[in-house]
Amino acid sequence: MKYQTIYFNGKLRLLDQTKLPNKVEYVDCRTQYEVYSAIKCMQVRGAPAIGIAAAYGLVLAIDNLILSNGNDPKNWDETLNELKKQGELLKQARPTAVNLSLAVDRILQIAKDETHNASFSLEYLKKRLLHAANNFLEEEQLSCRQIGKFGSNIIANGMQILTYCNAGALAAPEIGTALSPLYVAHNTGKKFNVYVSETRPRLQGSRLTAWELKETGIEPTIICDNMIAQLMKEKRVDIVIVGADRIAKNGDVANKIGTYGLAILAKHHQVPFYVAAPISTFDLQITDGKDIVIEQRHPSEVSELNGSVIAPEGVAVYNPSFDVTPHDLITGIISDHGLITPVNAERIEKTLAV
Amino acid sequence: MKYQTIYFNGKLRLLDQTKLPNKVEYVDCRTQYEVYSAIKCMQVRGAPAIGIAAAYGLVLAIDNLILSNGNDPKNWDETLNELKKQGELLKQARPTAVNLSLAVDRILQIAKDETHNASFSLEYLKKRLLHAANNFLEEEQLSCRQIGKFGSNIIANGMQILTYCNAGALAAPEIGTALSPLYVAHNTGKKFNVYVSETRPRLQGSRLTAWELKETGIEPTIICDNMIAQLMKEKRVDIVIVGADRIAKNGDVANKIGTYGLAILAKHHQVPFYVAAPISTFDLQITDGKDIVIEQRHPSEVSELNGSVIAPEGVAVYNPSFDVTPHDLITGIISDHGLITPVNAERIEKTLAV
Repeated sequence: MKYQTIYFNGKLRLLDQTKLPNKVEYVDCRTQYEVYSAIKCMQVRGAPAIGIAAAYGLVLAIDNLILSNGNDPKNWDETLNELKKQGELLKQARPTAVNLSLAVDRILQIAKDETHNASFSLEYLKKRLLHAANNFLEEEQLSCRQIGKFGSNIIANGMQILTYCNAGALAAPEIGTALSPLYVAHNTGKKFNVYVSETRPRLQGSRLTAWELKETGIEPTIICDNMIAQLMKEKRVDIVIVGADRIAKNGDVANKIGTYGLAILAKHHQVPFYVAAPISTFDLQITDGKDIVIEQRHPSEVSELNGSVIAPEGVAVYNPSFDVTPHDLITGIISDHGLITPVNAERIEKTLAV
Repeated sequence: MKYQTIYFNGKLRLLDQTKLPNKVEYVDCRTQYEVYSAIKCMQVRGAPAIGIAAAYGLVLAIDNLILSNGNDPKNWDETLNELKKQGELLKQARPTAVNLSLAVDRILQIAKDETHNASFSLEYLKKRLLHAANNFLEEEQLSCRQIGKFGSNIIANGMQILTYCNAGALAAPEIGTALSPLYVAHNTGKKFNVYVSETRPRLQGSRLTAWELKETGIEPTIICDNMIAQLMKEKRVDIVIVGADRIAKNGDVANKIGTYGLAILAKHHQVPFYVAAPISTFDLQITDGKDIVIEQRHPSEVSELNGSVIAPEGVAVYNPSFDVTPHDLITGIISDHGLITPVNAERIEKTLAV
């Protein structure tokens, strides 16, 4: 789709997601600090998308070394240390999604692998890292297509689908993760209704998912998050598909706050609950969900909206950005390696090994 | 509390709840049409509060007959018919809460009872209806105090309480329904934490409940509606107390959209779920919740906020204003006649008969 992250000539161009749906504006990041800020302020968001932005952020870090120091004033070790420092900064922008951390580590590994190379040059290193970042982007694009393929099999003609937050083309390359089954099903002529839950406090559902679906010719219906149970009671939801920010070894899923409650409501109403995510979202270092760090965000996200104050001045706010859905509430994980169901450590290990 | 509905000299003064928490402004209704509009636009809201406003609305209807026709140009029958017409209009302002309909019927009955009276005078009828409206207000005040008394017994020192929407002093006379146990417990020196769920789309929780709690010296913490499950998982909620707009014979409860989902989440986490409501909220004409009319409200409530557009132009919106919580998800109903638990037709019948 037309609103993808693009790196060219020392700039990373991102669609500013904080301005949607009212304005389609792009933000050009010229430094890794600007990328850090764009991730932190959620101008770019979505687990795969922030991983990709961070990968290019390290390319920008080299661009800036070249700009400030000329081509060759440093050596491998010094440059590697500098890159590590910048990588750590980028990781700190948002702690919950594993993709960010994995992307940074992957690019740093490319740099490390080059340290045996006797002839050091910043331009050479940049070329290598840019190539790696481009490859990473392409892999993620392919993953999304695979998820779309496997996930679209679940979507029957005439189905009513509920999605949450934004795990679409704005959150991951090309056709997204949770929305890719919808795009593939739509392209093959299937008809279905999509309900989009607005996803407070930042409204990624109503602002972003509804926008990108409409752009693609799919007309969604938005609801508030507190209407989900009523929608299910009225039999308006046949399946739920959401994305993921980190998946533990046992299949516990960290995703946008509200996902856990949504999964409980789906179980209560016997509605199948699917998570769509590339295998880059699995963190096999953690046994289960309780080890996942939940990012707490600023109170003003809840107490203000578009500059308008919507709560009494000085009121306390609790604002966790994610929650963890236990694997036993999840019907299946739609991965780029196929559908994982039932969701447990054994099935995950098997699927990831394919 | 200081922000109660007051009738004086041909005016009904209401605190404009659409302006809170940013502005404390009053709206003066001089006609029944202005009362109708204030209810419809939710300048006044909350099941008991709109009942009271409607009762005074009929007094204003007589005020206007007097103004336009002088004291005695009509007769009993003609006046009664006119009042019935105005009563029907007021009922149509919001269909779900039973209190509105009951209040109108009650005032109309007073008028009917007077038709045997041979000497007709609009001034006399007005006096009778004003007296009835004042009595009704006082009864509702007393009911709220009783709910506070019974409900405060449930609140232990150090408890963590979650409330939803606004069933406080803004929604019912004096100390409200769902919040009255908190006010009574607070006044008797009990310490507790209150979480207030913001309640989309109109944010009665963060705008109104948080405001009135703060005004009374109770410092709440606000959350978004999609954070409730996470809060419960973290063991931050010991009990839930919500209000009600209509309760069926079997104890099924219509209340603000999201209540039903909240009750499911409470059950999943084994958190006691209480409804606080005066017996004027029971509608014994309906056997169970499926006969309760659910008001659908305008899409702009979801797609706009304080004049700011927060969804793509022209997107479809589903916006039911209420839902029905089945009685088996409710631990107890805190009524002005005492605590009803377990919640079933038999126990309700017994309690209401007291």
